[in-house]
Amino acid sequence: MTVYMLGAGPGDPELITLKAINILKKAEVVLYDSLANDELLEYAPDDAKLIFVGKRAGEHYRKQPEINQLLIEEGKQHDIVVRLKGGDPFIFGRGGEEELALLEEGIDVQVVPGINSALGSSAMIGLPLTHRAVSTSLTLITGHEDPEKSEKQVNWDYTADTLVVFMGVGLLKKYVPKILEYRSPETPVCVIENGTLPEQRVITGTLGDIVEKKINPPALVIIGEVVNIYLESQKLRSKLE
Amino acid sequence: MTVYMLGAGPGDPELITLKAINILKKAEVVLYDSLANDELLEYAPDDAKLIFVGKRAGEHYRKQPEINQLLIEEGKQHDIVVRLKGGDPFIFGRGGEEELALLEEGIDVQVVPGINSALGSSAMIGLPLTHRAVSTSLTLITGHEDPEKSEKQVNWDYTADTLVVFMGVGLLKKYVPKILEYRSPETPVCVIENGTLPEQRVITGTLGDIVEKKINPPALVIIGEVVNIYLESQKLRSKLE
Repeated sequence: MTVYMLGAGPGDPELITLKAINILKKAEVVLYDSLANDELLEYAPDDAKLIFVGKRAGEHYRKQPEINQLLIEEGKQHDIVVRLKGGDPFIFGRGGEEELALLEEGIDVQVVPGINSALGSSAMIGLPLTHRAVSTSLTLITGHEDPEKSEKQVNWDYTADTLVVFMGVGLLKKYVPKILEYRSPETPVCVIENGTLPEQRVITGTLGDIVEKKINPPALVIIGEVVNIYLESQKLRSKLE
Repeated sequence: MTVYMLGAGPGDPELITLKAINILKKAEVVLYDSLANDELLEYAPDDAKLIFVGKRAGEHYRKQPEINQLLIEEGKQHDIVVRLKGGDPFIFGRGGEEELALLEEGIDVQVVPGINSALGSSAMIGLPLTHRAVSTSLTLITGHEDPEKSEKQVNWDYTADTLVVFMGVGLLKKYVPKILEYRSPETPVCVIENGTLPEQRVITGTLGDIVEKKINPPALVIIGEVVNIYLESQKLRSKLE
Protein backbone atom coordinates (compact mmCIF):
# COMPACT_ATOMS: atom_id res chain seq x y z
CA MET A 1 0.00 0.00 0.00
CA THR A 2 2.42 2.61 -1.26
CA VAL A 3 1.95 5.18 -3.98
CA TYR A 4 5.21 6.07 -5.71
CA MET A 5 5.10 9.53 -7.16
CA LEU A 6 7.61 9.49 -9.99
CA GLY A 7 8.94 12.41 -12.01
CA ALA A 8 9.05 11.54 -15.70
CA GLY A 9 11.33 14.42 -16.64
CA PRO A 10 10.91 17.07 -19.35
CA GLY A 11 10.00 14.82 -22.29
CA ASP A 12 13.04 12.98 -23.64
CA PRO A 13 12.38 9.41 -22.42
CA GLU A 14 16.07 8.97 -21.50
CA LEU A 15 15.80 11.82 -19.00
CA ILE A 16 14.12 9.66 -16.36
CA THR A 17 16.07 8.40 -13.35
CA LEU A 18 17.18 4.84 -12.76
CA LYS A 19 15.20 4.86 -9.51
CA ALA A 20 11.96 5.73 -11.33
CA ILE A 21 12.54 3.01 -13.96
CA ASN A 22 13.19 0.40 -11.26
CA ILE A 23 9.89 1.22 -9.56
CA LEU A 24 7.92 1.42 -12.84
CA LYS A 25 9.08 -2.13 -13.62
CA LYS A 26 7.26 -3.39 -10.50
CA ALA A 27 4.11 -1.26 -10.85
CA GLU A 28 0.70 -2.92 -10.54
CA VAL A 29 -1.09 0.29 -11.52
CA VAL A 30 0.21 3.42 -13.26
CA LEU A 31 -1.75 6.67 -13.21
CA TYR A 32 -0.13 9.00 -15.73
CA ASP A 33 -0.76 12.44 -17.14
CA SER A 34 -0.30 13.87 -20.63
CA LEU A 35 2.96 15.60 -19.75
CA ALA A 36 4.82 12.34 -19.29
CA ASN A 37 6.25 10.68 -22.36
CA ASP A 38 4.08 7.66 -23.24
CA GLU A 39 7.20 5.62 -24.14
CA LEU A 40 7.97 5.39 -20.44
CA LEU A 41 4.87 3.23 -19.93
CA GLU A 42 6.71 0.42 -21.68
CA TYR A 43 8.77 -0.09 -18.52
CA ALA A 44 5.61 -1.16 -16.66
CA PRO A 45 4.84 -4.92 -16.54
CA ASP A 46 2.56 -6.18 -19.36
CA ASP A 47 -0.29 -6.83 -16.94
CA ALA A 48 -0.06 -3.47 -15.17
CA LYS A 49 -3.23 -1.38 -15.23
CA LEU A 50 -2.55 1.92 -17.03
CA ILE A 51 -4.86 4.84 -16.24
CA PHE A 52 -4.63 8.12 -18.11
CA VAL A 53 -5.59 11.05 -15.87
CA GLY A 54 -4.15 13.98 -17.85
CA LYS A 55 -5.68 16.65 -20.01
CA ARG A 56 -6.13 16.27 -23.74
CA ALA A 57 -7.60 18.93 -26.00
CA GLY A 58 -11.36 18.62 -26.37
CA GLU A 59 -11.71 15.71 -23.95
CA HIS A 60 -13.28 15.63 -20.54
CA TYR A 61 -10.53 15.48 -17.98
CA ARG A 62 -10.41 14.56 -14.36
CA LYS A 63 -10.22 17.34 -11.82
CA GLN A 64 -7.76 17.13 -8.94
CA PRO A 65 -10.19 15.76 -6.29
CA GLU A 66 -11.18 13.01 -8.75
CA ILE A 67 -7.51 12.10 -9.32
CA ASN A 68 -6.91 12.06 -5.56
CA GLN A 69 -9.89 9.73 -5.12
CA LEU A 70 -8.67 7.38 -7.83
CA LEU A 71 -5.19 7.29 -6.26
CA ILE A 72 -6.73 6.45 -2.89
CA GLU A 73 -8.86 3.64 -4.35
CA GLU A 74 -5.95 2.11 -6.24
CA GLY A 75 -3.61 2.67 -3.30
CA LYS A 76 -5.92 0.71 -1.01
CA GLN A 77 -6.13 -2.23 -3.42
CA HIS A 78 -2.50 -2.62 -4.52
CA ASP A 79 0.98 -2.73 -3.04
CA ILE A 80 2.76 -0.73 -5.74
CA VAL A 81 0.87 2.09 -7.39
CA VAL A 82 2.80 4.54 -9.56
CA ARG A 83 1.76 8.14 -10.10
CA LEU A 84 3.79 9.26 -13.12
CA LYS A 85 4.01 13.00 -13.63
CA GLY A 86 5.83 15.10 -16.22
CA GLY A 87 8.87 17.02 -15.03
CA ASP A 88 9.18 16.92 -11.26
CA PRO A 89 6.05 16.00 -9.26
CA PHE A 90 6.78 18.61 -6.60
CA ILE A 91 7.40 21.69 -8.78
CA PHE A 92 4.06 23.02 -10.00
CA GLY A 93 2.94 19.41 -10.22
CA ARG A 94 0.37 19.35 -7.40
CA GLY A 95 2.32 16.46 -5.93
CA GLY A 96 2.02 17.87 -2.42
CA GLU A 97 -1.77 17.83 -2.62
CA GLU A 98 -1.83 14.21 -3.74
CA GLU A 99 0.70 13.28 -1.05
CA LEU A 100 -1.43 14.73 1.76
CA ALA A 101 -4.67 13.24 0.37
CA LEU A 102 -3.09 9.77 0.35
CA LEU A 103 -1.42 10.04 3.77
CA GLU A 104 -4.73 11.17 5.27
CA GLU A 105 -6.20 7.85 4.10
CA GLY A 106 -3.35 5.89 5.63
CA ILE A 107 -1.60 5.20 2.33
CA ASP A 108 2.17 5.69 2.27
CA VAL A 109 3.74 7.91 -0.40
CA GLN A 110 7.29 7.86 -1.70
CA VAL A 111 8.42 10.62 -4.00
CA VAL A 112 11.08 10.10 -6.67
CA PRO A 113 12.15 13.44 -8.11
CA GLY A 114 12.32 13.98 -11.85
CA ILE A 115 14.22 16.47 -13.95
CA ASN A 116 12.21 19.67 -13.78
CA SER A 117 11.05 20.68 -17.30
CA ALA A 118 12.52 24.18 -17.16
CA LEU A 119 15.88 23.14 -15.79
CA GLY A 120 16.11 20.15 -18.12
CA SER A 121 15.03 21.93 -21.29
CA SER A 122 17.40 24.84 -20.77
CA ALA A 123 20.37 22.60 -19.91
CA MET A 124 19.81 20.49 -23.02
CA ILE A 125 20.13 23.54 -25.30
CA GLY A 126 23.22 24.69 -23.39
CA LEU A 127 21.57 27.59 -21.57
CA PRO A 128 22.80 27.88 -17.97
CA LEU A 129 20.06 29.35 -15.74
CA THR A 130 22.76 30.60 -13.37
CA HIS A 131 26.14 31.92 -14.42
CA ARG A 132 28.99 33.53 -12.50
CA ALA A 133 28.74 37.31 -12.30
CA VAL A 134 25.60 37.22 -14.47
CA SER A 135 23.02 35.32 -12.44
CA THR A 136 23.34 34.04 -8.89
CA SER A 137 19.61 33.59 -8.32
CA LEU A 138 16.80 31.93 -10.18
CA THR A 139 13.06 32.20 -9.68
CA LEU A 140 10.59 29.65 -11.04
CA ILE A 141 6.99 30.76 -11.24
CA THR A 142 3.85 29.45 -12.79
CA GLY A 143 1.96 31.77 -15.09
CA HIS A 144 -1.00 29.39 -15.32
CA GLU A 145 -4.14 31.17 -14.41
CA ASP A 146 -6.06 28.17 -13.23
CA PRO A 147 -8.28 29.47 -10.42
CA GLU A 148 -8.29 25.94 -9.04
CA LYS A 149 -4.50 25.99 -8.95
CA SER A 150 -3.90 29.04 -6.86
CA GLU A 151 -5.94 31.77 -5.30
CA LYS A 152 -2.91 33.97 -4.87
CA GLN A 153 -2.35 37.02 -7.03
CA VAL A 154 0.87 36.64 -9.02
CA ASN A 155 3.16 39.62 -8.62
CA TRP A 156 5.95 40.16 -11.09
CA ASP A 157 8.41 42.18 -9.04
CA TYR A 158 10.73 39.20 -8.62
CA THR A 159 14.24 40.35 -7.86
CA ALA A 160 16.08 37.21 -8.91
CA ASP A 161 18.53 37.54 -11.80
CA THR A 162 16.87 34.83 -13.90
CA LEU A 163 13.12 34.38 -14.15
CA VAL A 164 11.61 31.19 -15.56
CA VAL A 165 7.89 31.22 -16.24
CA PHE A 166 5.84 28.09 -16.87
CA MET A 167 2.99 29.53 -18.83
CA GLY A 168 0.37 28.99 -21.43
CA VAL A 169 1.57 30.91 -24.44
CA GLY A 170 -1.75 32.74 -24.59
CA LEU A 171 -0.73 34.36 -21.33
CA LEU A 172 2.50 35.80 -22.72
CA LYS A 173 0.71 38.88 -24.10
CA LYS A 174 -0.98 39.39 -20.75
CA TYR A 175 2.03 38.94 -18.48
CA VAL A 176 4.88 40.51 -20.44
CA PRO A 177 3.55 44.06 -19.89
CA LYS A 178 3.46 43.30 -16.14
CA ILE A 179 7.05 42.04 -16.18
CA LEU A 180 8.05 45.15 -18.15
CA GLU A 181 7.05 47.25 -15.15
CA TYR A 182 10.08 45.80 -13.38
CA ARG A 183 12.53 44.88 -16.15
CA SER A 184 13.97 46.72 -19.16
CA PRO A 185 12.53 45.98 -22.64
CA GLU A 186 16.12 45.12 -23.64
CA THR A 187 16.11 42.12 -21.24
CA PRO A 188 16.88 39.01 -23.29
CA VAL A 189 14.20 36.31 -23.45
CA CYS A 190 14.35 32.71 -24.63
CA VAL A 191 11.27 30.59 -25.26
CA ILE A 192 11.61 26.81 -25.53
CA GLU A 193 8.73 24.96 -27.18
CA ASN A 194 8.48 21.19 -26.65
CA GLY A 195 11.77 21.14 -24.73
CA THR A 196 14.00 18.04 -25.15
CA LEU A 197 11.64 16.49 -27.73
CA PRO A 198 12.40 16.06 -31.47
CA GLU A 199 9.90 18.85 -32.29
CA GLN A 200 11.69 21.31 -29.97
CA ARG A 201 11.88 24.94 -31.14
CA VAL A 202 13.89 27.74 -29.52
CA ILE A 203 12.86 31.36 -30.03
CA THR A 204 14.92 34.27 -28.69
CA GLY A 205 14.14 37.95 -28.42
CA THR A 206 13.72 40.61 -25.78
CA LEU A 207 10.97 41.52 -23.35
CA GLY A 208 10.20 44.34 -25.78
CA ASP A 209 9.60 42.17 -28.85
CA ILE A 210 8.86 38.61 -27.68
CA VAL A 211 5.06 38.94 -27.87
CA GLU A 212 5.31 39.71 -31.61
CA LYS A 213 6.93 36.34 -32.34
CA LYS A 214 5.03 33.22 -33.26
CA ILE A 215 5.10 30.83 -30.31
CA ASN A 216 3.14 27.61 -29.80
CA PRO A 217 2.40 25.82 -26.52
CA PRO A 218 3.71 24.11 -24.49
CA ALA A 219 6.48 26.61 -23.91
CA LEU A 220 8.85 27.76 -21.21
CA VAL A 221 9.89 31.38 -20.97
CA ILE A 222 13.37 32.28 -19.67
CA ILE A 223 14.04 35.93 -18.88
CA GLY A 224 17.41 37.41 -17.98
CA GLU A 225 21.02 38.00 -18.97
CA VAL A 226 21.77 34.26 -19.01
CA VAL A 227 20.02 34.17 -22.39
CA ASN A 228 23.07 36.07 -23.72
CA ILE A 229 25.31 33.20 -22.58
CA TYR A 230 23.14 30.89 -24.68
CA LEU A 231 23.41 33.24 -27.71
CA GLU A 232 27.18 33.36 -27.24
CA SER A 233 27.37 29.55 -27.06
CA GLN A 234 25.23 29.24 -30.21
CA LYS A 235 27.54 31.59 -32.09
CA LEU A 236 30.54 29.48 -31.05
CA ARG A 237 28.69 26.25 -31.92
CA SER A 238 28.00 27.51 -35.44
CA LYS A 239 31.78 27.66 -35.98
CA LEU A 240 32.33 24.01 -35.03
CA GLU A 241 33.10 21.70 -37.94
CA MET B 1 35.83 15.64 -29.67
CA THR B 2 32.82 16.19 -27.47
CA VAL B 3 32.64 16.91 -23.77
CA TYR B 4 29.47 15.57 -22.18
CA MET B 5 28.55 17.54 -19.10
CA LEU B 6 26.50 15.17 -16.99
CA GLY B 7 24.48 15.92 -13.89
CA ALA B 8 25.04 13.25 -11.25
CA GLY B 9 22.02 14.21 -9.15
CA PRO B 10 21.80 14.98 -5.44
CA GLY B 11 23.70 11.98 -4.05
CA ASP B 12 21.61 8.79 -4.20
CA PRO B 13 23.30 6.89 -7.05
CA GLU B 14 19.90 5.81 -8.43
CA LEU B 15 18.95 9.44 -9.00
CA ILE B 16 20.99 9.72 -12.20
CA THR B 17 19.28 9.68 -15.59
CA LEU B 18 19.38 6.85 -18.08
CA LYS B 19 20.91 9.26 -20.62
CA ALA B 20 23.81 10.06 -18.31
CA ILE B 21 24.44 6.37 -17.59
CA ASN B 22 24.46 5.52 -21.31
CA ILE B 23 27.09 8.18 -21.97
CA LEU B 24 29.20 7.27 -18.91
CA LYS B 25 29.40 3.69 -20.25
CA LYS B 26 31.21 4.97 -23.35
CA ALA B 27 33.47 7.51 -21.62
CA GLU B 28 37.18 7.54 -22.40
CA VAL B 29 37.89 10.11 -19.70
CA VAL B 30 35.80 11.19 -16.71
CA LEU B 31 36.54 14.41 -14.83
CA TYR B 32 34.49 14.35 -11.64
CA ASP B 33 34.06 16.47 -8.56
CA SER B 34 33.49 15.59 -4.93
CA LEU B 35 29.76 16.28 -5.07
CA ALA B 36 29.09 13.36 -7.39
CA ASN B 37 28.62 9.97 -5.83
CA ASP B 38 31.75 7.89 -6.46
CA GLU B 39 29.61 4.77 -7.09
CA LEU B 40 28.59 6.30 -10.41
CA LEU B 41 32.16 5.93 -11.66
CA GLU B 42 31.55 2.20 -11.87
CA TYR B 43 29.49 2.78 -15.02
CA ALA B 44 32.61 4.01 -16.83
CA PRO B 45 34.59 1.40 -18.82
CA ASP B 46 37.42 -0.30 -16.90
CA ASP B 47 40.06 1.44 -19.00
CA ALA B 48 38.55 4.92 -18.72
CA LYS B 49 40.83 7.58 -17.26
CA LEU B 50 39.26 8.97 -14.06
CA ILE B 51 40.37 12.41 -12.94
CA PHE B 52 39.21 13.91 -9.64
CA VAL B 53 38.92 17.70 -9.88
CA GLY B 54 36.79 18.44 -6.80
CA LYS B 55 37.54 19.88 -3.42
CA ARG B 56 38.46 17.75 -0.42
CA ALA B 57 39.12 19.12 3.02
CA GLY B 58 42.79 19.95 3.56
CA GLU B 59 43.86 19.09 0.04
CA HIS B 60 45.03 21.36 -2.74
CA TYR B 61 42.26 21.70 -5.25
CA ARG B 62 42.10 22.86 -8.82
CA LYS B 63 40.74 26.31 -9.50
CA GLN B 64 38.21 26.83 -12.28
CA PRO B 65 40.69 27.99 -14.99
CA GLU B 66 42.79 24.89 -14.29
CA ILE B 67 39.72 22.63 -14.66
CA ASN B 68 38.78 24.39 -17.90
CA GLN B 69 42.34 23.83 -19.20
CA LEU B 70 42.24 20.14 -18.29
CA LEU B 71 38.87 19.72 -20.02
CA ILE B 72 40.23 21.39 -23.15
CA GLU B 73 43.32 19.15 -23.17
CA GLU B 74 41.30 15.96 -22.69
CA GLY B 75 38.63 17.17 -25.12
CA LYS B 76 41.24 17.63 -27.85
CA GLN B 77 42.65 14.14 -27.35
CA HIS B 78 39.48 12.04 -26.99
CA ASP B 79 36.11 11.58 -28.64
CA ILE B 80 34.04 11.09 -25.50
CA VAL B 81 35.04 13.04 -22.43
CA VAL B 82 32.63 13.15 -19.48
CA ARG B 83 32.46 16.01 -17.03
CA LEU B 84 30.47 14.60 -14.10
CA LYS B 85 29.06 17.18 -11.72
CA GLY B 86 26.91 16.81 -8.59
CA GLY B 87 23.29 17.93 -8.90
CA ASP B 88 22.66 19.74 -12.16
CA PRO B 89 25.69 21.15 -14.01
CA PHE B 90 23.85 24.34 -14.93
CA ILE B 91 22.47 25.34 -11.53
CA PHE B 92 25.27 26.87 -9.46
CA GLY B 93 27.57 24.32 -11.09
CA ARG B 94 29.71 26.64 -13.22
CA GLY B 95 28.72 24.52 -16.20
CA GLY B 96 28.15 27.58 -18.36
CA GLU B 97 31.73 28.71 -17.84
CA GLU B 98 33.14 25.32 -18.80
CA GLU B 99 30.81 25.17 -21.81
CA LEU B 100 32.04 28.52 -23.19
CA ALA B 101 35.70 27.71 -22.50
CA LEU B 102 35.39 24.46 -24.47
CA LEU B 103 33.39 25.92 -27.37
CA GLU B 104 35.97 28.71 -27.69
CA GLU B 105 38.57 26.02 -28.32
CA GLY B 106 36.41 24.34 -30.95
CA ILE B 107 35.32 21.46 -28.69
CA ASP B 108 31.64 20.54 -28.78
CA VAL B 109 29.70 20.33 -25.51
CA GLN B 110 26.51 18.40 -24.81
CA VAL B 111 24.76 18.95 -21.52
CA VAL B 112 22.72 16.23 -19.82
CA PRO B 113 20.72 17.71 -16.94
CA GLY B 114 20.77 16.09 -13.52
CA ILE B 115 18.36 16.26 -10.62
CA ASN B 116 19.15 19.52 -8.87
CA SER B 117 20.24 18.84 -5.26
CA ALA B 118 17.67 21.14 -3.67
CA LEU B 119 14.74 19.92 -5.72
CA GLY B 120 15.77 16.28 -5.36
CA SER B 121 16.50 16.35 -1.64
CA SER B 122 13.24 18.09 -0.78
CA ALA B 123 11.14 15.80 -2.98
CA MET B 124 12.70 12.69 -1.43
CA ILE B 125 11.60 13.75 2.07
CA GLY B 126 8.12 14.61 0.75
CA LEU B 127 8.52 18.39 0.95
CA PRO B 128 6.90 20.12 -2.06
CA LEU B 129 8.74 23.36 -2.87
CA THR B 130 5.54 24.69 -4.48
CA HIS B 131 2.03 24.01 -3.24
CA ARG B 132 -1.36 25.31 -4.28
CA ALA B 133 -2.43 28.45 -2.40
CA VAL B 134 0.78 28.28 -0.32
CA SER B 135 3.63 28.75 -2.77
CA THR B 136 3.42 29.53 -6.48
CA SER B 137 6.99 30.75 -6.81
CA LEU B 138 10.38 29.41 -5.86
CA THR B 139 13.73 31.15 -5.76
CA LEU B 140 17.03 29.28 -5.71
CA ILE B 141 20.05 31.27 -4.60
CA THR B 142 23.59 30.48 -3.67
CA GLY B 143 24.80 31.68 -0.31
CA HIS B 144 28.39 30.76 -1.09
CA GLU B 145 30.63 33.69 -0.58
CA ASP B 146 33.31 32.63 -2.96
CA PRO B 147 34.67 35.88 -4.45
CA GLU B 148 35.74 33.85 -7.45
CA LYS B 149 32.17 32.63 -7.91
CA SER B 150 30.36 35.92 -8.11
CA GLU B 151 31.21 39.57 -7.77
CA LYS B 152 27.58 40.48 -7.23
CA GLN B 153 26.26 41.49 -3.87
CA VAL B 154 23.58 39.05 -2.72
CA ASN B 155 20.39 40.83 -1.70
CA TRP B 156 17.84 39.02 0.40
CA ASP B 157 14.66 40.83 -0.53
CA TYR B 158 13.45 37.94 -2.68
CA THR B 159 9.71 38.05 -3.06
CA ALA B 160 9.14 34.42 -4.05
CA ASP B 161 7.02 32.33 -1.70
CA THR B 162 9.70 29.67 -1.20
CA LEU B 163 13.38 30.46 -0.84
CA VAL B 164 16.01 27.75 -1.19
CA VAL B 165 19.55 28.65 -0.24
CA PHE B 166 22.58 26.57 -1.14
CA MET B 167 24.96 27.61 1.55
CA GLY B 168 27.86 26.71 3.69
CA VAL B 169 26.41 26.19 7.14
CA GLY B 170 28.92 28.65 8.57
CA LEU B 171 27.08 31.31 6.60
CA LEU B 172 23.71 30.58 8.19
CA LYS B 173 24.50 32.84 11.17
CA LYS B 174 25.56 35.59 8.81
CA TYR B 175 22.66 35.44 6.35
CA VAL B 176 19.65 34.65 8.55
CA PRO B 177 19.67 38.15 10.10
CA LYS B 178 19.62 39.59 6.57
CA ILE B 179 16.69 37.38 5.56
CA LEU B 180 14.92 38.42 8.77
CA GLU B 181 14.85 41.98 7.45
CA TYR B 182 12.31 40.77 4.88
CA ARG B 183 10.60 37.76 6.47
CA SER B 184 8.96 37.10 9.82
CA PRO B 185 10.89 35.18 12.54
CA GLU B 186 7.93 32.76 12.53
CA THR B 187 8.69 31.71 8.93
CA PRO B 188 9.22 27.94 8.92
CA VAL B 189 12.66 26.65 7.90
CA CYS B 190 13.84 23.18 6.96
CA VAL B 191 17.51 22.24 6.68
CA ILE B 192 18.49 19.04 4.87
CA GLU B 193 21.97 17.71 5.57
CA ASN B 194 23.41 15.14 3.15
CA GLY B 195 20.18 15.01 1.16
CA THR B 196 19.16 11.62 -0.34
CA LEU B 197 22.15 9.85 1.25
CA PRO B 198 21.96 7.28 4.08
CA GLU B 199 23.45 9.85 6.50
CA GLN B 200 20.71 12.38 5.67
CA ARG B 201 19.43 14.52 8.56
CA VAL B 202 16.45 16.87 8.50
CA ILE B 203 16.23 19.76 10.94
CA THR B 204 13.19 22.05 11.15
CA GLY B 205 12.65 25.32 12.95
CA THR B 206 11.90 28.93 12.19
CA LEU B 207 13.92 31.85 10.90
CA GLY B 208 13.94 33.01 14.52
CA ASP B 209 15.53 29.89 16.02
CA ILE B 210 17.31 27.99 13.22
CA VAL B 211 20.77 29.43 13.95
CA GLU B 212 20.64 27.96 17.47
CA LYS B 213 20.33 24.39 16.13
CA LYS B 214 23.26 22.13 15.43
CA ILE B 215 23.70 21.81 11.68
CA ASN B 216 26.56 20.25 9.74
CA PRO B 217 27.53 20.86 6.11
CA PRO B 218 26.69 20.17 3.35
CA ALA B 219 23.18 21.47 3.89
CA LEU B 220 20.31 23.02 2.00
CA VAL B 221 18.11 25.61 3.63
CA ILE B 222 14.41 25.81 2.65
CA ILE B 223 12.49 28.84 3.86
CA GLY B 224 8.73 29.33 3.55
CA GLU B 225 5.25 28.05 4.34
CA VAL B 226 5.81 24.85 2.31
CA VAL B 227 7.82 23.59 5.29
CA ASN B 228 4.46 23.34 7.10
CA ILE B 229 3.21 20.95 4.39
CA TYR B 230 6.23 18.78 5.17
CA LEU B 231 5.50 18.91 8.92
CA GLU B 232 1.88 17.97 8.22
CA SER B 233 2.96 15.06 6.02
CA GLN B 234 5.39 13.86 8.72
CA LYS B 235 2.63 13.92 11.31
CA LEU B 236 0.44 11.81 9.03
CA ARG B 237 3.32 9.47 8.23
CA SER B 238 3.89 8.80 11.94
CA LYS B 239 0.36 7.36 12.10
CA LEU B 240 0.97 4.84 9.29
CA GLU B 241 1.28 1.25 10.40
